[in-house]
Amino acid sequence: MESDAVTIMDTLGRQARGAAKAMRMADTKAKNAALILAAAVIRRESREIIAANTLDMKAADENGLDAAMKDRLLLNGDRIEAMAEGLEQIAGLPDPVGAIDNLRFRPSGIQVGHMRVPLGVIGIIYESRPNVTADAAGLCLKSGNAAILRGGSEAIHSNRAVAGCLRRALVDSGLPQNAVQLVDSTDRALVGALLKAEQYVDVIIPRGGKSLIERVAAESRVPVIKHLDGICHVYIDASAKAGMALNIAVNAKTHRYGVCNAMETLLIHQDVKGDVVCAIIQAMLDKGVEVRGCDRTRERCEGLDVKVATDEDWATEYLSPVLSVRIVDDLDAAVDHIAQYSSGHTESIVTESYEAGQRFLREVDSSSVMWNASTRFADGFEYGLGAEIGISTDRLHVRGPVGLEGLTTQKWIVLGTGQVRV
Amino acid sequence: MESDAVTIMDTLGRQARGAAKAMRMADTKAKNAALILAAAVIRRESREIIAANTLDMKAADENGLDAAMKDRLLLNGDRIEAMAEGLEQIAGLPDPVGAIDNLRFRPSGIQVGHMRVPLGVIGIIYESRPNVTADAAGLCLKSGNAAILRGGSEAIHSNRAVAGCLRRALVDSGLPQNAVQLVDSTDRALVGALLKAEQYVDVIIPRGGKSLIERVAAESRVPVIKHLDGICHVYIDASAKAGMALNIAVNAKTHRYGVCNAMETLLIHQDVKGDVVCAIIQAMLDKGVEVRGCDRTRERCEGLDVKVATDEDWATEYLSPVLSVRIVDDLDAAVDHIAQYSSGHTESIVTESYEAGQRFLREVDSSSVMWNASTRFADGFEYGLGAEIGISTDRLHVRGPVGLEGLTTQKWIVLGTGQVRV
Repeated sequence: MESDAVTIMDTLGRQARGAAKAMRMADTKAKNAALILAAAVIRRESREIIAANTLDMKAADENGLDAAMKDRLLLNGDRIEAMAEGLEQIAGLPDPVGAIDNLRFRPSGIQVGHMRVPLGVIGIIYESRPNVTADAAGLCLKSGNAAILRGGSEAIHSNRAVAGCLRRALVDSGLPQNAVQLVDSTDRALVGALLKAEQYVDVIIPRGGKSLIERVAAESRVPVIKHLDGICHVYIDASAKAGMALNIAVNAKTHRYGVCNAMETLLIHQDVKGDVVCAIIQAMLDKGVEVRGCDRTRERCEGLDVKVATDEDWATEYLSPVLSVRIVDDLDAAVDHIAQYSSGHTESIVTESYEAGQRFLREVDSSSVMWNASTRFADGFEYGLGAEIGISTDRLHVRGPVGLEGLTTQKWIVLGTGQVRV
Repeated sequence: MESDAVTIMDTLGRQARGAAKAMRMADTKAKNAALILAAAVIRRESREIIAANTLDMKAADENGLDAAMKDRLLLNGDRIEAMAEGLEQIAGLPDPVGAIDNLRFRPSGIQVGHMRVPLGVIGIIYESRPNVTADAAGLCLKSGNAAILRGGSEAIHSNRAVAGCLRRALVDSGLPQNAVQLVDSTDRALVGALLKAEQYVDVIIPRGGKSLIERVAAESRVPVIKHLDGICHVYIDASAKAGMALNIAVNAKTHRYGVCNAMETLLIHQDVKGDVVCAIIQAMLDKGVEVRGCDRTRERCEGLDVKVATDEDWATEYLSPVLSVRIVDDLDAAVDHIAQYSSGHTESIVTESYEAGQRFLREVDSSSVMWNASTRFADGFEYGLGAEIGISTDRLHVRGPVGLEGLTTQKWIVLGTGQVRV
């Protein structure tokens, strides 16, 4: 019932607001203690967590979930240990809350600066992977926020067990247990109620497949930090070193296939020599990648098994061993192709030309723009954030990998000695 | 017709996107030249602008607009000169675009940093004041964005004249004239179409009365940077210096009444001496301010004309010579009152206590939190932003006074020498 959902969300929301007030003022020591204790509780209760997960896995069998989904759903000893270690790593990160920036005197005599503060209440909507329960809650906790977690119904028992560990650790550390709340119901109306709980929730972060994220973006009245697509490009410029181009292209495509920062389209300047183009394509084929090329690509590498790329290919996030390849006239054409087809996630140029590299950095408008590096580096750990709650392809507030700082905002602080406006 | 509105917005949106691409890459020199030329064109065409404004003023008379609205609508020589000077000031501000922050090496060998980039297309929806056309367009231009301006229908002739000056200056400076577009129609359906133009517009900034901003917030599918209310508080702590408390309170309330950073409620610690409380209230009365107090306030200052404050008063943005006063038990009660009734704009504590001041800075969650300074300082110029497009009471992206930087975002840049993920 929709009205029930609103009532439930009202309770969760009020509790979250109350907890957020305490979390906002919680000191670093208490937050770190809660994270370290949560890791210990998760290790201690690993048998109970696995038992809960077994219920979800059984239901997954009964409901005919596919192998990939079941793999995401599964918790075992290693994965539980990874959750615990993740929480300990978050405890080790610097606390962003309360940091004061740029405090400077103004001609009026007042000092003006910025203080970093938590966002407040963060709603996380996610699918399948129960480890998100620990990861997301841990990041929200460290950044002084309260979290309302809505996991997939297929993982309800696992999520309940993990969230329970976190809540116990909060209480035992003197922090409000409602800083982590799980929407403990599989009623889909609750997602709608969460998306409309503007008075209680400051931001929604959806994590999951495209259809989930599109639904959240379309329905939400709360601001959303989202990551829609990862159609990432590598552009090999005329002046690229052949070996570097090959290494970066192969790494960007084949290091992992199902990730958002994998290359989906390779753009190549028309002046790149035919044998370099064919060596790259051959390397892809050797790795078992299906290559779909434009006419020019297929002409250049006639002897190789290059399928025909259609317009649809340029707009497709394969997330699998498929690559589209296009030969372009010049840097402008590469930038235009990216502007038209990229999802704004990550693009990389391979070039020895200062001018081409500088232009690419300026002119490509994606959350990460790289020069002579693999797109696979677009990641919170690789960027030094310590951990990430997701990657934003939005423009406002935060772009690219979102770490603790992305879960905070700033307020202005003014220190005076009695100044008034004249 | 709604479908007409969508068609018109589609054209404006496409044109804005095209212009935004050029503006994103425009160099500082060209943008400054356009701003300075726009100021010159506005001065040169001041007679034509006043003639256009006269048409709006006539219509305002015919439509029975009130005196305050007509004052906001009026353009005269001084106001036109102020518009021109405003544009010249924006030309003198540092260009935020392209600035690179925090570029540092990671263990993998890549260098990671942030580059500041324009938001893209900014929709400004505003009322009455035609000077917003020049101010908002100037800030969008300098920050490398394209602007779609939708002014009030009562100012259509004035806005058309001012926008025309800006567009001519853009063309003569080699920049796209569609970087500044006015929605040249009074059809209200166009506001709805603008709010739904997600594919063309990156952010909407409404400027005007509360009903306009509420409508925009409720209807918009585009992210909104908004300023809803300014229910600002001054809290006089037990240890405040009496003279400073009086000066700050009087300045915060009476320096200007109709502004969002004026104090609306004065909170006073119960230990502040009765004669100090009464001196402050007397000073307010002397300035013609109506004072509405809680029971304790009225008891303390029995001889003074203090009206009864109701719960509604605590939640009211007067924007006029009315002040509510409440005596509170302690700092906690002050913080709680603020948490309940403040609009999250600006609050100030007056205290000599280090502990009380530090706690207030941490515990009050408003866009500006002050210590021994008048709330009237919450302003882009006073904070050193040079100019402001508004004040945000939202939490995400930007809080408090919004200057050029608030009209930009950041992307990650990665500089490598061929690194790949291992």
